[in-house]
Amino acid sequence: MTDITASLELIKRGADELLIEADLVERLKTGRPLRVKAGFDPTAPDLHLGHTVLINKLRHFQELGHQVLFLIGDFTGMIGDPSGKNTTRPPLTREQVLENARTYQDQVFKILDPEKTEVCFNSSWMEALGASGMIRLAAQHTVARMLERDDFSKRYSAQQPIAIHEFLYPLCQGYDSVAMKADIELGGTDQRFNLLVGRELQKHYGQAPQCVLTMPLLEGLDGVNKMSKSLGNYIGIYEPPSEIFGKVMSISDELMWRYYDLLSFRGAAEIKRLRESISEGRNPRDVKVLLAQELVARFHGQAAAVAALEDFEARFQRNAIPDDIPEVSLSAEAGGLAISAALKLAGLTGSTSEALRMIGQGGVRLNGEKLADKALVLKVGESVVLQVGKRKFAKVSVV
Amino acid sequence: MTDITASLELIKRGADELLIEADLVERLKTGRPLRVKAGFDPTAPDLHLGHTVLINKLRHFQELGHQVLFLIGDFTGMIGDPSGKNTTRPPLTREQVLENARTYQDQVFKILDPEKTEVCFNSSWMEALGASGMIRLAAQHTVARMLERDDFSKRYSAQQPIAIHEFLYPLCQGYDSVAMKADIELGGTDQRFNLLVGRELQKHYGQAPQCVLTMPLLEGLDGVNKMSKSLGNYIGIYEPPSEIFGKVMSISDELMWRYYDLLSFRGAAEIKRLRESISEGRNPRDVKVLLAQELVARFHGQAAAVAALEDFEARFQRNAIPDDIPEVSLSAEAGGLAISAALKLAGLTGSTSEALRMIGQGGVRLNGEKLADKALVLKVGESVVLQVGKRKFAKVSVV
Repeated sequence: MTDITASLELIKRGADELLIEADLVERLKTGRPLRVKAGFDPTAPDLHLGHTVLINKLRHFQELGHQVLFLIGDFTGMIGDPSGKNTTRPPLTREQVLENARTYQDQVFKILDPEKTEVCFNSSWMEALGASGMIRLAAQHTVARMLERDDFSKRYSAQQPIAIHEFLYPLCQGYDSVAMKADIELGGTDQRFNLLVGRELQKHYGQAPQCVLTMPLLEGLDGVNKMSKSLGNYIGIYEPPSEIFGKVMSISDELMWRYYDLLSFRGAAEIKRLRESISEGRNPRDVKVLLAQELVARFHGQAAAVAALEDFEARFQRNAIPDDIPEVSLSAEAGGLAISAALKLAGLTGSTSEALRMIGQGGVRLNGEKLADKALVLKVGESVVLQVGKRKFAKVSVV
Repeated sequence: MTDITASLELIKRGADELLIEADLVERLKTGRPLRVKAGFDPTAPDLHLGHTVLINKLRHFQELGHQVLFLIGDFTGMIGDPSGKNTTRPPLTREQVLENARTYQDQVFKILDPEKTEVCFNSSWMEALGASGMIRLAAQHTVARMLERDDFSKRYSAQQPIAIHEFLYPLCQGYDSVAMKADIELGGTDQRFNLLVGRELQKHYGQAPQCVLTMPLLEGLDGVNKMSKSLGNYIGIYEPPSEIFGKVMSISDELMWRYYDLLSFRGAAEIKRLRESISEGRNPRDVKVLLAQELVARFHGQAAAVAALEDFEARFQRNAIPDDIPEVSLSAEAGGLAISAALKLAGLTGSTSEALRMIGQGGVRLNGEKLADKALVLKVGESVVLQVGKRKFAKVSVV
């Protein structure tokens, strides 16, 4: 049971919800490798760290000796958006799907163990259902229950159209679990309804219903919104090492622990020790460096991680900002505060004209980076570290 | 245009609704044979006259030179009721479907011209759709619009379950119209929604949308409820000639005209002359005899019709009931009135014991038929003609 307790702890780390835990315990007790399902769109993948939260969890299962079933949902991908309303979802050809699957594998095998990963395509069993099989499948759920799904319910109430095929997709996803004989399925919290449909269909087909593990959405660099390309708060796994390293170093200390939980493969005990070391006086920046190195190493290799660290330290020492510098609050008009005025008011230069001259000579740094723009205006609410020459610093907050 | 006016008159005779008439006129103007679709369940058929209303209308189209597409809905029939809730709808095998189709043809070719009838099976195009085709089809309609269908709407409001595959059936039926390139589809009034789905799907697939002709449900022998086996108010087309003849003779004069409209192949002008002849004093019974003969001849041949008439007339003369006989209202307990008491109270026998003796001797008739059951009880509301010996009659109403 100690083993199972430890396994459960790893499985539940960072997770949102585990259904049904007692059921999972029973399966873990059998000692056989569980079949762990996760489904992915067959559209061209370009993963960021937000996507890897789920894949990391799959890796946890692999570390525990289980078999990952990496499902490419090519069946619906090859249909596209049949309502014709979404021009960004044209149907994919078999070749495109296979090409995308290869790209996917290149990316996810930086995290997953290929030996314990089975890549599946649901077209292989969905097409075999035929038109009549699809009708039999549709008979397994009622309209009312489907309308209970949160997004359907909202759209129906708001009189926004729901095409009938949208009701078929959760059933297809559930039937995948039947065809794959999944012991457990992983998904985002927004997939909860669909994952439970899988449980029901497995029961109907005489299988033990799968357990369900939902993973939260990862916050982006801002620590508030979910990580996404469109918000620009993401770390792409194919970004250059120095970018990944620098972006990790930019996150808040609080967000760092969230990333440790969801993105690091360090054990819970090790992370606990890291937390304690900070309580004992260690600079959080050093712990952030460890995370940055781990992530760069994962996607670009150990050598790149070492180089990124050296590069970062060189820049850090060059542009080092002392730990205790004076903090100044400056009032500004609604339009903001000119950089030259800010330098003078913070006491870093004797006058605005000296400030402008120092900028022209390359003697002014903003957040450690050389400042060239004499006309820069600091906005109300902005907080920056200003540096003139080697030794004069001030942390300026514009209010 | 005279031809088209006449055609339209025949097409609309007895019909409930024609959508869209102007569209049908345009197609009739082309002079080409129209493709006239009607769909039938592939379950074991045992037709009664109610079923023939639609088939008669198909025959009208054939008389006008059009092509009838007699569709056997074997696709869904071979699925059965996939929700498993309806044990009376087990899936049919291909062999059962073909056997039922043969039985169907035996029956309907007593009405339709085989030369102008194409028998189709929708499995031939529905299975070819495949699972992905079914999803594309499902994308052509919204949940909200499907829930507008009267029976779905009622069930949804009453929180009775609607399985999702039930939403697929109207779409399958509509796709049949696409595959068959139907110019017009016929159905019962309860099929109106589904027939209109066919119009929409044809538009989507770039075809001119079909016209729709709905036929009313035929009233049964009681003139009130729709004809159905379970109500016992039907005339089966395989009943013996004397049964069909006798049942037609039993209907009211008013219902007779309804049956003339929906079941007779006599022209409108001829039916009009029959009506006039009654106004001029002809006994309606003679006109009913013509209808009975026509229907017996249709299903059993002309010789059988002649024999049935002779048999009926012989029985009629043997058991003739005079036109003016005394009418008596008799009060009864809730349990009804014993036949012996009724005979005495109506003045047909001197006592109940005489009544029982007369029944024992075979001297009592009820509605012209010899009565053997001494224990018969007349129910409250019942109205019968009682006869004792050759000449004593009374029409007895139990109140």
